[in-house]
Amino acid sequence: MKITVSRKAHFNAAHRLYRPDWSFEKNDSVFGKCNNANFHGHNYELVASVTGAVNPETGYVIDIKTLADLIYDEVEVSFDHKNLNLDVPEFAELIPTAEHIAYVIWRKLRKRLDPALDLEITLYETPRNFVTYRGE
Amino acid sequence: MKITVSRKAHFNAAHRLYRPDWSFEKNDSVFGKCNNANFHGHNYELVASVTGAVNPETGYVIDIKTLADLIYDEVEVSFDHKNLNLDVPEFAELIPTAEHIAYVIWRKLRKRLDPALDLEITLYETPRNFVTYRGE
Amino acid sequence: MKITVSRKAHFNAAHRLYRPDWSFEKNDSVFGKCNNANFHGHNYELVASVTGAVNPETGYVIDIKTLADLIYDEVEVSFDHKNLNLDVPEFAELIPTAEHIAYVIWRKLRKRLDPALDLEITLYETPRNFVTYRGE
Amino acid sequence: MKITVSRKAHFNAAHRLYRPDWSFEKNDSVFGKCNNANFHGHNYELVASVTGAVNPETGYVIDIKTLADLIYDEVEVSFDHKNLNLDVPEFAELIPTAEHIAYVIWRKLRKRLDPALDLEITLYETPRNFVTYRGE
Amino acid sequence: MKITVSRKAHFNAAHRLYRPDWSFEKNDSVFGKCNNANFHGHNYELVASVTGAVNPETGYVIDIKTLADLIYDEVEVSFDHKNLNLDVPEFAELIPTAEHIAYVIWRKLRKRLDPALDLEITLYETPRNFVTYRGE
Amino acid sequence: MKITVSRKAHFNAAHRLYRPDWSFEKNDSVFGKCNNANFHGHNYELVASVTGAVNPETGYVIDIKTLADLIYDEVEVSFDHKNLNLDVPEFAELIPTAEHIAYVIWRKLRKRLDPALDLEITLYETPRNFVTYRGE
Repeated sequence: MKITVSRKAHFNAAHRLYRPDWSFEKNDSVFGKCNNANFHGHNYELVASVTGAVNPETGYVIDIKTLADLIYDEVEVSFDHKNLNLDVPEFAELIPTAEHIAYVIWRKLRKRLDPALDLEITLYETPRNFVTYRGE
Repeated sequence: MKITVSRKAHFNAAHRLYRPDWSFEKNDSVFGKCNNANFHGHNYELVASVTGAVNPETGYVIDIKTLADLIYDEVEVSFDHKNLNLDVPEFAELIPTAEHIAYVIWRKLRKRLDPALDLEITLYETPRNFVTYRGE
Repeated sequence: MKITVSRKAHFNAAHRLYRPDWSFEKNDSVFGKCNNANFHGHNYELVASVTGAVNPETGYVIDIKTLADLIYDEVEVSFDHKNLNLDVPEFAELIPTAEHIAYVIWRKLRKRLDPALDLEITLYETPRNFVTYRGE
Repeated sequence: MKITVSRKAHFNAAHRLYRPDWSFEKNDSVFGKCNNANFHGHNYELVASVTGAVNPETGYVIDIKTLADLIYDEVEVSFDHKNLNLDVPEFAELIPTAEHIAYVIWRKLRKRLDPALDLEITLYETPRNFVTYRGE
Repeated sequence: MKITVSRKAHFNAAHRLYRPDWSFEKNDSVFGKCNNANFHGHNYELVASVTGAVNPETGYVIDIKTLADLIYDEVEVSFDHKNLNLDVPEFAELIPTAEHIAYVIWRKLRKRLDPALDLEITLYETPRNFVTYRGE
Repeated sequence: MKITVSRKAHFNAAHRLYRPDWSFEKNDSVFGKCNNANFHGHNYELVASVTGAVNPETGYVIDIKTLADLIYDEVEVSFDHKNLNLDVPEFAELIPTAEHIAYVIWRKLRKRLDPALDLEITLYETPRNFVTYRGE
């Protein structure tokens, strides 16, 4: 029996979308308000979904507390109440779009999970804007 | 790297479910309260999800503002504060069930999007009733 | 000990804001999109809040099932899946703005409740637009 | 045209996670706070999603009222305001983890649905912890 | 300048509504499904709202982390993953209706807060049923 | 007849809580993670509630579109996708705690509203932390 177990978490962070190798004007035309020079920020909501076989002895695919602790260690400690551009090494050279943040989170959690489990990340930048990455 | 980008939007509309080629009694037995002769209405919530490759230069699959503007032009302008049966040509001969509304929205957005992108529409008629159409 | 007990309910309805004694142009300038001639609609969310003394024997101010049944009888039966302008007598001569709908609901519930209890009605026309009436 | 129709429902229940064939200490180390001897409880939110062809005559995959009634008969009557361990026969020998509850609900609804329809169950134990079962 | 600061928290618990000095039949007629002999349960959502003057040096009425820690110590440690009737001394002789739970929480937090601050408790038993206690 | 009309809006912003006249250590002990030197951010949700008499001719206390436009002009244009500390003059010398942001918004809207109307501001910094200011 294969089941998906999902855990929702959140972190609050500042970010700015721009490329230092582009002019301010080009950044503005591509990234609009997200290029504000002094940053802006979001309450990011994160859903990590793990799919795998149910352990018949415990009735768990994964103890959701284990998943919650993993998200805490790998994501909340590094991202919460931080500036993604300046405080998080993964975004030193990677624009922190929602797409890229989901990809970075997926990579951080993937390497800590049993390879037999599938992983999908959904990241809400706002309640109306969100992205999903499945490792493809 | 393939990612899904989702944008949530909404519109408020009146509708009625019935077939003019059926008796009122038959319409009532099939459509129940949704057959009220003077219409009823909903706050529809719409999620348009676009899947494709991330542009390595911008970190975007699609600028979510482009997607939001597209939904505004194709869906909100035509459907918001309207009577779907009487004011929207697509429903002149198509019963405006949630299934059909999702299908019509999918077709309107599909023809405006890059063919390399996949599109999925989820439409909430109420917070407890919703449908999803993937173009299949 | 005085406590407020609140019950949330909902109904889906069509309506139109306009005055028959005004020209279409004047209606449009005052009511905008809400004056669409063929109606539009909403999923209304209603919160009825009743304040009073806790009965020491039961620990209840009012059995919330009693309150839910009262909302069903007085509001849902008359308003759900209806056209407020055409199907609900209270709005034959009263424009069904959110303000007036809250007022009508307050009056319908007020006369069915113990006079020792206070009543407040909050009505959400959309998740972002709502009104509150306290009988003042 | 293939569409997924989803209905959200809920039930409130008590449960406890433990194996009678394990010591209290082992149960505690595996199930933590969920092993509280006197039970604890949740407001479970359930989404049942049915996928199939749209009937061209009605514009429905399945009348959502039929789906809501089915959930009521098979799930709410048996689970709502109950103790899953003591009052629900399916959990006499099956630990009521979210995974197992989703599996039991899937089996109860599956046998009542047209075999041409696919079924997926998502069960929220809390707003932050949820599972999905697709019958695989 | 007087401001209200609110913190939302949650706990999951089992309970049963009944009076041991009443017959099962009388309990059933008053408490209905809430009288299930083996208990049922809820995800309770709690909002604690504290009103007072803003400290001009910090811009805080109360550090919301202090308020969150207080709720954790006084409410979550005692109530979360517990059976309110059997595990919580305050309900040994007090029926754990939402009204009474809000009252008990108010008393526990009140004695730990600066007397210059006002306190209001809102307790959601379900998303549709909730109560508010202001200490009156 | 007196009614409260509420409009919900939002803005995304970066901020930092600290006093330049305090040491970093003192700022850290008072403001904790909110003192991150490179800022962090939030999706702020704002509810502006206006109370007054219903105009018997229109059934409105205030046209909610007028209220929405006012919030846009006074709050969203200045705060959205901005750094509150660096980009918003009102916070040049005022720590942008939720309390102070609510106060600044109240003052900006208050001076644009009819003096006969009462105004209350609720500001959500996160879904679990929020403040309310009534002009007292």
